Amino acid sequence: MMTKNLYNVAVVGATGAVGQQMLKTLEEREFPIDTLKLLSSARSAGKEIEFKGKSYQVEEAKPESFEGIDIALFSAGGSVSKALAQEAADRGAIVIDNTSAFRMDPNVPLVVPEVNEADLHTHNGIIANPNCSTIQMVVALEPIRQKMGLKKVIVSTYQAVSGAGKVAIDELYEQTQAGVEGKDLEAKVLPVKSAEKHYPIAYNAIPQIDVFQENGFTYEEMKMINETKKIMHLPELKVAATCVRLPIETGHSESVYFEVEQEGASVDEIKSLLKESDGIILQDDPSNQIYPMPYYAAGKNEVFVGRIRQDLDERSGYHMWVVSDNLLKGAAFNSVQIAESLIKLNII
Amino acid sequence: MMTKNLYNVAVVGATGAVGQQMLKTLEEREFPIDTLKLLSSARSAGKEIEFKGKSYQVEEAKPESFEGIDIALFSAGGSVSKALAQEAADRGAIVIDNTSAFRMDPNVPLVVPEVNEADLHTHNGIIANPNCSTIQMVVALEPIRQKMGLKKVIVSTYQAVSGAGKVAIDELYEQTQAGVEGKDLEAKVLPVKSAEKHYPIAYNAIPQIDVFQENGFTYEEMKMINETKKIMHLPELKVAATCVRLPIETGHSESVYFEVEQEGASVDEIKSLLKESDGIILQDDPSNQIYPMPYYAAGKNEVFVGRIRQDLDERSGYHMWVVSDNLLKGAAFNSVQIAESLIKLNII
Repeated sequence: MMTKNLYNVAVVGATGAVGQQMLKTLEEREFPIDTLKLLSSARSAGKEIEFKGKSYQVEEAKPESFEGIDIALFSAGGSVSKALAQEAADRGAIVIDNTSAFRMDPNVPLVVPEVNEADLHTHNGIIANPNCSTIQMVVALEPIRQKMGLKKVIVSTYQAVSGAGKVAIDELYEQTQAGVEGKDLEAKVLPVKSAEKHYPIAYNAIPQIDVFQENGFTYEEMKMINETKKIMHLPELKVAATCVRLPIETGHSESVYFEVEQEGASVDEIKSLLKESDGIILQDDPSNQIYPMPYYAAGKNEVFVGRIRQDLDERSGYHMWVVSDNLLKGAAFNSVQIAESLIKLNII
Repeated sequence: MMTKNLYNVAVVGATGAVGQQMLKTLEEREFPIDTLKLLSSARSAGKEIEFKGKSYQVEEAKPESFEGIDIALFSAGGSVSKALAQEAADRGAIVIDNTSAFRMDPNVPLVVPEVNEADLHTHNGIIANPNCSTIQMVVALEPIRQKMGLKKVIVSTYQAVSGAGKVAIDELYEQTQAGVEGKDLEAKVLPVKSAEKHYPIAYNAIPQIDVFQENGFTYEEMKMINETKKIMHLPELKVAATCVRLPIETGHSESVYFEVEQEGASVDEIKSLLKESDGIILQDDPSNQIYPMPYYAAGKNEVFVGRIRQDLDERSGYHMWVVSDNLLKGAAFNSVQIAESLIKLNII
């Protein structure tokens, strides 16, 4: 296939928290754009957005919006993707979808470039970007899996509100301010905007992200479990997750316990492996209080890993602490990376 | 031994966050006090504190302060306990110590009344109150251990700042306010006041509580590991912990994975067990978004348990979410409960 030099790019959901980060990332990485089209729901259409010093009017996304588009980055919610992603693909665009609409579809590759870039070759017009909390974990686990194999993962997450959109960020700051003033905390958005009950997130921890499934796990937890197996090509991997929302604006953290196939690796070997891996910054020096924290990871593209230590009872077990910006590597940056990989691999 | 009707009680560290809760708890539970003595470091001596409508002047704690005292509740830091607990015991008081000074001493019982009240009979003048994050976990695990045995525990904590004292609460609110105003967050207390580096806690997660040990675990994590084995009389139990400080004023939460000896128990059986257990309130109805949260547990004496679910891969594995007020059941309430147990068991 011929490599074009410049591409017609559409961003669907351009006015949202992730859409804004996508535009910023395309700008920063000087993505080879010919024409740029900013799309949204009817509600946000008409807004003006700056990109590389030029003003763009946001248009309502319709099937015909995708005529002539090469790459369509979708981040406007699952229902928009379900309605329009196939329409875009039918018109010749490659869709990179940041919603959960197609992630577990066997015909759709689910890609984190550091882990399974080659899966992009199997695409049929739609490529799925994994869930934010899944991406940062598999980036940290993959170098370990390659060297030592991987048997089991138990993760507890510490997730920022920005994963629930701008409305959740606003709610955190409104409640935070109310708390400082000694007023009641009014909750309208979290844990799930469409759910019956809402709870304050300021000064609180909510052990619910997305809706509950029959088995007692939330959908967010099942995303982490199922997506990890798919991305890593490990259908037999044992994975369990507990996902918790916290009063943090941006940056997800994860306490990850994992067991490897090949016993006896030292913590230093694991640190060396991760230090040399693409997309990872090792921050692991307890004696100098060096470990990853979301406050410092916000705005960065990498996955930060630290607090790596051997379990005291299981010879094949280790613990680590993984932090990343959920809007960047967890969403916008990974999507743009997928687009870059499509060019690099001559897929587009 | 004769049972006295009223007791001479000393509270050491009366002006601190836990000391204040101890006084409130003694008041609420109408503890049978004859004379009350409020003690502190030289720095806080002279302050006036109200108890049951009467004003008490805080005195500097010295060895001779404990003459005639029956029960001395210590919560003024490890160095004060090391200096004065034995002095108090030598003068005939039973010391209930809320610091880590004597917890792992084989001659000192480490007691959570719901779990190992009978260990109080072995005391030699000093009884240790466990670490806050340990107490709430063992309260939730003990009914399960009794019925099904317990093999393994992996816990990740979500800990409130009040565990680090009033200065940490003040710091959280100062930083929170600065964040709302778009100012820099100044850090002077957390993660460890005496440590070289301090990090903001507002809008952040700090994966360090207390100082690091040689093995890469923090002292807080080792407290959870070692104290759990001692309290539950399970030296062979596999326990691992990751402890994290969060921008929450009061209420620790814990994501607990555990494996039982006896496979095949249903989640409903575990729920029934916990529902009937002393000191536990089961809040577990995902379909109605009922689960424990620190914002609602603050100010309550119980341990709240929810999100109980079977692991999807391990037949003997389960997950649960455990929340409690770290100043009450995690500290002051448990200490007063120990004093009540001493009376009930005719030990004092």
